[in-house]
Amino acid sequence: MAQVKKQLLAVLVLSTLGGLAQAQSSVVVYGTIDAAVAKITDKTTQVAKRDANKLGFKGTEDLGSGLKALFQLEMRYEPDTGTNESNSRPLFQGQSRVGLQGDFGMVRIGRGVTAFQDAKDAFDPYHGVSGTPGLKGDIEVAGYTSQPLDPAGSSNDRFNNAIWYNSPVVNGFQFNATVATKEANNGPAVVGRGTAAAPQYPANGEASAIPMSYAVTYKQDMFAVMGAWERNAIETKVWFVGASVNPMKELKLMATYAHQNQDHTKVSNNETKAWLLGANYTMGASKVLVGYGQKKPDGAVTTKQWSLGYEYALSKRTFLYADASDKRAATSVKYYGLGVHHEF
Amino acid sequence: MAQVKKQLLAVLVLSTLGGLAQAQSSVVVYGTIDAAVAKITDKTTQVAKRDANKLGFKGTEDLGSGLKALFQLEMRYEPDTGTNESNSRPLFQGQSRVGLQGDFGMVRIGRGVTAFQDAKDAFDPYHGVSGTPGLKGDIEVAGYTSQPLDPAGSSNDRFNNAIWYNSPVVNGFQFNATVATKEANNGPAVVGRGTAAAPQYPANGEASAIPMSYAVTYKQDMFAVMGAWERNAIETKVWFVGASVNPMKELKLMATYAHQNQDHTKVSNNETKAWLLGANYTMGASKVLVGYGQKKPDGAVTTKQWSLGYEYALSKRTFLYADASDKRAATSVKYYGLGVHHEF
Amino acid sequence: MAQVKKQLLAVLVLSTLGGLAQAQSSVVVYGTIDAAVAKITDKTTQVAKRDANKLGFKGTEDLGSGLKALFQLEMRYEPDTGTNESNSRPLFQGQSRVGLQGDFGMVRIGRGVTAFQDAKDAFDPYHGVSGTPGLKGDIEVAGYTSQPLDPAGSSNDRFNNAIWYNSPVVNGFQFNATVATKEANNGPAVVGRGTAAAPQYPANGEASAIPMSYAVTYKQDMFAVMGAWERNAIETKVWFVGASVNPMKELKLMATYAHQNQDHTKVSNNETKAWLLGANYTMGASKVLVGYGQKKPDGAVTTKQWSLGYEYALSKRTFLYADASDKRAATSVKYYGLGVHHEF
Repeated sequence: MAQVKKQLLAVLVLSTLGGLAQAQSSVVVYGTIDAAVAKITDKTTQVAKRDANKLGFKGTEDLGSGLKALFQLEMRYEPDTGTNESNSRPLFQGQSRVGLQGDFGMVRIGRGVTAFQDAKDAFDPYHGVSGTPGLKGDIEVAGYTSQPLDPAGSSNDRFNNAIWYNSPVVNGFQFNATVATKEANNGPAVVGRGTAAAPQYPANGEASAIPMSYAVTYKQDMFAVMGAWERNAIETKVWFVGASVNPMKELKLMATYAHQNQDHTKVSNNETKAWLLGANYTMGASKVLVGYGQKKPDGAVTTKQWSLGYEYALSKRTFLYADASDKRAATSVKYYGLGVHHEF
Repeated sequence: MAQVKKQLLAVLVLSTLGGLAQAQSSVVVYGTIDAAVAKITDKTTQVAKRDANKLGFKGTEDLGSGLKALFQLEMRYEPDTGTNESNSRPLFQGQSRVGLQGDFGMVRIGRGVTAFQDAKDAFDPYHGVSGTPGLKGDIEVAGYTSQPLDPAGSSNDRFNNAIWYNSPVVNGFQFNATVATKEANNGPAVVGRGTAAAPQYPANGEASAIPMSYAVTYKQDMFAVMGAWERNAIETKVWFVGASVNPMKELKLMATYAHQNQDHTKVSNNETKAWLLGANYTMGASKVLVGYGQKKPDGAVTTKQWSLGYEYALSKRTFLYADASDKRAATSVKYYGLGVHHEF
Repeated sequence: MAQVKKQLLAVLVLSTLGGLAQAQSSVVVYGTIDAAVAKITDKTTQVAKRDANKLGFKGTEDLGSGLKALFQLEMRYEPDTGTNESNSRPLFQGQSRVGLQGDFGMVRIGRGVTAFQDAKDAFDPYHGVSGTPGLKGDIEVAGYTSQPLDPAGSSNDRFNNAIWYNSPVVNGFQFNATVATKEANNGPAVVGRGTAAAPQYPANGEASAIPMSYAVTYKQDMFAVMGAWERNAIETKVWFVGASVNPMKELKLMATYAHQNQDHTKVSNNETKAWLLGANYTMGASKVLVGYGQKKPDGAVTTKQWSLGYEYALSKRTFLYADASDKRAATSVKYYGLGVHHEF
């Protein structure tokens, strides 16, 4: 009995300390390191990555009455060379946001992935990785970019100078919005409907309309669906629908459709459509990822990509993986990779 | 026996936690994230900041006999774009210093804010913030900069390659000094009394005299005063006095006077004088900041600035704020902002 | 009463742990800050460093069955100016590696110091510091660099895009290997046997052979020896032997010999030989470092360097030091420094 009580005490102390330790330094240091040996068509064998690599700092502060303050700062880096992501991106490429969370939902301000780009990862059979075998950056979004006026080398799925709102989840529904200012971000000129000498958007140009992104998600039992619409700084628009179903616990089937409209910057051939089908199958420590999709720009060649992946979990935080993919437009680029993914 | 068991338990719990909590290191991760939505005269609405944004790493080590070793490394960043400060400054723009503290005071070596620039923040009604509504970078220092030979885009209040000394506080008095080497810092040329072809200080030039900064502060009951003198790498000098009084607990009144002398680099009009008056009023969670000042350069137009701020504390670490300011020289620049400030 | 005691115990454990456990995450934040005031021949007095300065993040995860996942990310910086190392190097200049450790040894992938360069530090009387009085970067390696095709300003002892293997220690022996891909790293052209117009290795050129590095170390009682061989991306080769002995506990004597062969890029004078002798003597808190060595390139002047250092430990993590060194080739460069070294 005394023994039991002492064990209870130990558990109590441990769990209390879980809370204390967190409160004491309010900062959680976290991250991902993912590296692979890969072979890409016509390139020398290389050390590549499948997922983006992160080193982040985050925390929440309880303000009472169900209100919380929260922040998150996330670096991105290349493990094969030690540089920040692409050796060109911002120090906190991942995100830099501060906000409040309460019964009303969550409001954040800063830089980060847009509402649309964030929500769609749940319908990507390659769970949102940005490496070569991944599908999220091109096929899944019909070639759309959220950052046309940001510096060359920027990623494609973020807004600077923006405000985020995420509603609470009500009956399975959640509403997510991102609205940015028209601030210039020191990016290159976009010729668009202009000429090289008089581009439609000059270098370091401001947005011609408020960039905004909206996504609605719905989840119940084994079904999930989403719809999204986004407009970037040069008024390119995209709409997107996605759905997933888990017919059994081990299997997840996914489908997405995206439609990009560039009529603000292109006279003709300004529509691009894309679709993606995928499946994840989990059995014990093993997980298989399959994806196939097409991107069809008006008046240009269709891009077709399939990706096949296998993951073997060594723990909840660490897995080994093997990937193969083939992306074909005018030519075919094949990718084979073998790597390790570790979260900390 | 039960006693022994309990001690065993304690040891067990401690050692279990040893595994859990690997961060028994002495490093504290800390920071600030501050972002606002702001409107500035003739500019598009923007996501701005009021205070500098920090991510820091610091620690102290007890060496016995009242002696401590200490270090501090502080990044600065822009939350609206995720870049390091101004997208150009050093990784540890805030500071990078190591030192010893004991009965003799504190000695540190590295890079950081000078003794003068550090001490004056206590007399700034905008408590030393560097954003547009702040007063510390121009009005409070009569336009003086501590870093004329540092790379373009540097801040204005630091020394590289320097040693800091802070005395213990004796009868309310403290003496603070910063002395730098004459090392070149890869900065631009300063024409000064030379010509564009033969500038007084060439690009990547060394200091012509040891840069140094001294500040004496005195604090007793409701009064505080300070006096400071500093000379930068191109022998511009500034002297400064500041005073504050708390006639009641809720109210703090502040006044400063600064005098910049540029006779080493300018033939004429080499004096600039500035004064600043301010008040802070705190009532419960609310705080009001008011500041007004003028900077008068010889033979040039006077700059006048008023700033008005309101802060509402959600906790000791988090507050919301609203700012308005107007800075007039030849033209008027008005600023209105609404933001959140979070410390972690 | 027992109840009360248990609560007391809980409180005691909690408060003890408050100090201990700053983060429940698996990430250890660690680093070094080292700064000195130094005088170098013909240069103004400066704030310099003796050792490289680090801010790192590392962790291990127990995967069961003796298997561990591990990662390490290490920034390098200049404390006198706050920039990242040399104001040009990658964010994680120190290393960025992820791997697995088990009975088989340790396998890692990413960027870091090569097997040869890592092992040789144990035979360097200046324990591997990279500052001016150190011996590891030139004399100890016969002028060899591991990174000839990496960007200008890179360090000399790392491989990008590589895999590391460290065997378990068996009967005092350990085998260590690093093998890189031939990937281009965006470095400058190497003229080599070509001409300036048609360099042997173009800018951003790939390696002409797989870069690889092998080191075998042996340690028993008071003796340690090592042998190593490495080939870089332009097929410069180096072989190296080192030995140390501790005739008494306080004294360590060291000797190394290195031989660099550049016949792949030079028609003549392609051999460089170097030797180094050193001693460390520890007495209580004091430690004396002595090193002398020569580097003899074929057909060029011999470089001779001696270095003399004194360290006074304030704790296991912090020491003060004084250094003097003289490096002579065509001219003599003398160095005198006084500094502090702090680990966290």
